Amino acid sequence: MQGLDYFFKARSVAVVGASTKPGKIGHEILRSLVEGDYKGNVYPVNPRAEKILGLRCYGSVLEIPDEVDLAVLSIPPKAVLKVVEECGKKGIKAIVIVSGGFKEIGPEGAEIERKCVEIARRYGMRIIGPNCIGIFDGDTRIDTFFQSRERMLRPPKGDIAFLTQSGTFGCAFLEWAAEDGIGISKFVSYGNRADVDEADLIRYLGGDPETKVIAIYAESISNGRKFMETCKEISKLKPIVVLKSGRTKEGSMAAVSHTGSIAGSYKIISSAFKQCGVVEVRTFEELYEVSKALSMLPLAAGPRIAMVTNGAGPCVMATDEIIQRGMKLAEYSEKTKKELRRQLPSYAQVGNPVDLTGSATVRDYEISIRTLLEDLSVDILMVFFVFQDTPLGEEVVHLVPKMKKYGKPIIAVAAGGPFTKKQSQELERRGIPVFSSPERAVAAAHALYLAAEYFCR
Amino acid sequence: MQGLDYFFKARSVAVVGASTKPGKIGHEILRSLVEGDYKGNVYPVNPRAEKILGLRCYGSVLEIPDEVDLAVLSIPPKAVLKVVEECGKKGIKAIVIVSGGFKEIGPEGAEIERKCVEIARRYGMRIIGPNCIGIFDGDTRIDTFFQSRERMLRPPKGDIAFLTQSGTFGCAFLEWAAEDGIGISKFVSYGNRADVDEADLIRYLGGDPETKVIAIYAESISNGRKFMETCKEISKLKPIVVLKSGRTKEGSMAAVSHTGSIAGSYKIISSAFKQCGVVEVRTFEELYEVSKALSMLPLAAGPRIAMVTNGAGPCVMATDEIIQRGMKLAEYSEKTKKELRRQLPSYAQVGNPVDLTGSATVRDYEISIRTLLEDLSVDILMVFFVFQDTPLGEEVVHLVPKMKKYGKPIIAVAAGGPFTKKQSQELERRGIPVFSSPERAVAAAHALYLAAEYFCR
Repeated sequence: MQGLDYFFKARSVAVVGASTKPGKIGHEILRSLVEGDYKGNVYPVNPRAEKILGLRCYGSVLEIPDEVDLAVLSIPPKAVLKVVEECGKKGIKAIVIVSGGFKEIGPEGAEIERKCVEIARRYGMRIIGPNCIGIFDGDTRIDTFFQSRERMLRPPKGDIAFLTQSGTFGCAFLEWAAEDGIGISKFVSYGNRADVDEADLIRYLGGDPETKVIAIYAESISNGRKFMETCKEISKLKPIVVLKSGRTKEGSMAAVSHTGSIAGSYKIISSAFKQCGVVEVRTFEELYEVSKALSMLPLAAGPRIAMVTNGAGPCVMATDEIIQRGMKLAEYSEKTKKELRRQLPSYAQVGNPVDLTGSATVRDYEISIRTLLEDLSVDILMVFFVFQDTPLGEEVVHLVPKMKKYGKPIIAVAAGGPFTKKQSQELERRGIPVFSSPERAVAAAHALYLAAEYFCR
Repeated sequence: MQGLDYFFKARSVAVVGASTKPGKIGHEILRSLVEGDYKGNVYPVNPRAEKILGLRCYGSVLEIPDEVDLAVLSIPPKAVLKVVEECGKKGIKAIVIVSGGFKEIGPEGAEIERKCVEIARRYGMRIIGPNCIGIFDGDTRIDTFFQSRERMLRPPKGDIAFLTQSGTFGCAFLEWAAEDGIGISKFVSYGNRADVDEADLIRYLGGDPETKVIAIYAESISNGRKFMETCKEISKLKPIVVLKSGRTKEGSMAAVSHTGSIAGSYKIISSAFKQCGVVEVRTFEELYEVSKALSMLPLAAGPRIAMVTNGAGPCVMATDEIIQRGMKLAEYSEKTKKELRRQLPSYAQVGNPVDLTGSATVRDYEISIRTLLEDLSVDILMVFFVFQDTPLGEEVVHLVPKMKKYGKPIIAVAAGGPFTKKQSQELERRGIPVFSSPERAVAAAHALYLAAEYFCR
């Protein structure tokens, strides 16, 4: 083990500030580690308690008889320096500081943060946080969250890594993934980012075979040059998707009091993202859904999108978005058009979208999807469904995944209630992501194209 | 009864093109009327069937022995003219043409459409459609959908009216409303809009006491002058929210083949919306959620937004959106700041947002919400929740609705899995709308402000 491995693969964890009271942060962190699927040893540290959750308590990390890889701190800022020093003496290699009250509240807090890092450097320790909800590993099931399992689902193991300055967005991302059956490789809420920064994490994840996509929510970038150089290198290996907030002066001031971050000029940062191969997204939902699409689908060989539908309203919205993003409507070959006209019923309109109307059947979809995917002028296929339309057989969800054999990305769009959700889940289980918003579906198509471009340059 | 009443309050309905085959459009429309909660008489018309769903079939509308208010047509375009003529002779006052194959496919279809309207005018009939899914009334439960109840939920009675050129968006809107327990007064999918257009419907809904908010998805506007004059008048009575697609040249071409609509210059239309008091939204989700907020909340007396949270990431995103939309961050009075500092624990940061951090308790929320709502410099309150955070008591969902007594709009924001959804539902049941996206929450705040401005001018 080396470097950041001590966080994600820690064989033993000390929880400093473990509390006897359910509901307290220091209690819930311990509970997440003890009652979850983490297999390593867990040591509560609290000088005023004998036992918590059946585990013996220690007065300090120095009293723990065994080796400890990771310490998770939930203690007041003024107590932190002494504990970090003790962690160093104990030979601990990694520290997560969950507590707030540091740089985000002003110079005094910033000074404690600076001193923490100084001590950590001296002992060769790394720090994640402070002011965060810490880390989660889909494989080792390390889990430092004070959000109980009753309130927050944990996702399965998988290939998306999520780095976030906001614990709140972290919670939502993890739960959406869990509900969609989407797996997470590694998760880091890095808060004030006193030591380990986004570039360190991106480099680490670049070399992590479990991670296929790196998703990031950032209020600021700690070191622009280091960030850009790292992204330039890693975006050739795997897609990096970033949501950057603090785009306005006021938003960036809000970021200062949230994570002590100074956001910098958004225009400059946004253009830097393009230069260094980062796929930028605009909203949190887009961040989640684009990451999901990148993890499920092959990259796109070009920007040309074909659409097929049994209800064209969302295709009109999608067309606007395709054009506004600089993507393209595929222009089918004569052969394709002839073939579609020959095989489809007269109610179908052969254009982009191919509009099969509310009378559409599974056969109509099959002919359209196959013919469009065979056309060399189509890079990406968007399949829209009105699952509510009764003429459309339910078995259409079995058909679409079979078309993955053509090697092109297929994105589905559908919105509605329980029946539509059931059909969408069936599709997703078979590897076809489903979006409820035409705009986000196009955002995903765009990301598949951009990531391929970065990959190839 | 007069005018459009014959659609929504029809005492009897003929389904022309009723089919014996389950899954066929003409069968499913009949089933929606017969197996739903509609109380009027229903007459299937099909010359080649004896009985469908237990009802006696008629060879034509002329053979029906009783009076008929409304006819729903699901027949090939070439058969339509004869049937419309017969409807006229029968004394029917309203026709919904569900079938497609008219203006959206070219000049030949447009010509049939024109002739239909000519016949209808002669008999004093009105037509909705063609190329649509028809109408739904929350009160009379008139329901012409070919989307079966097994596949599509119907919403309860309520105060949002939804007009849409796209049946697909219609299905999603109705189901989202049903799932959220949001009620619908009237619903119209008007497709190619051969006769009854959006302005006719807006005027009708303006005088409808059941309707509080009018929401519209439009690919084009049929008659700009008429539309603007109508909206200018009606937006002083109730909010009109519009999602306009076909914003790009390519998008507007897609609209032509969808509903035969020519979209016109988006810039001109968008500025016309402002002039005539229409609240414009940008995405379909925004259309739904803004309409929901307008139906649940009082309008905003000004643009100044205060935020309170136990996790500030989404507030940073919201701040960006507030500024970009030209709304304002409330600047609290000295009294408010002093009061909050005095009463809140030391971990809380008194700014905008008031950041209660992950340690937040129900008491912290209570103090903050009350104090902010009492401040005259606050027009709108946005309350953000990380329900996943274990220190926050579940009873917070009982607290917030009590604060409606201050008469200011309160918008909640929360995102996550089952526990968060349960808490959000509790809030919504008590009249506080909850958004999973900070951007859409700000869009709602913006709409509450704009609608008030239009109302007052």
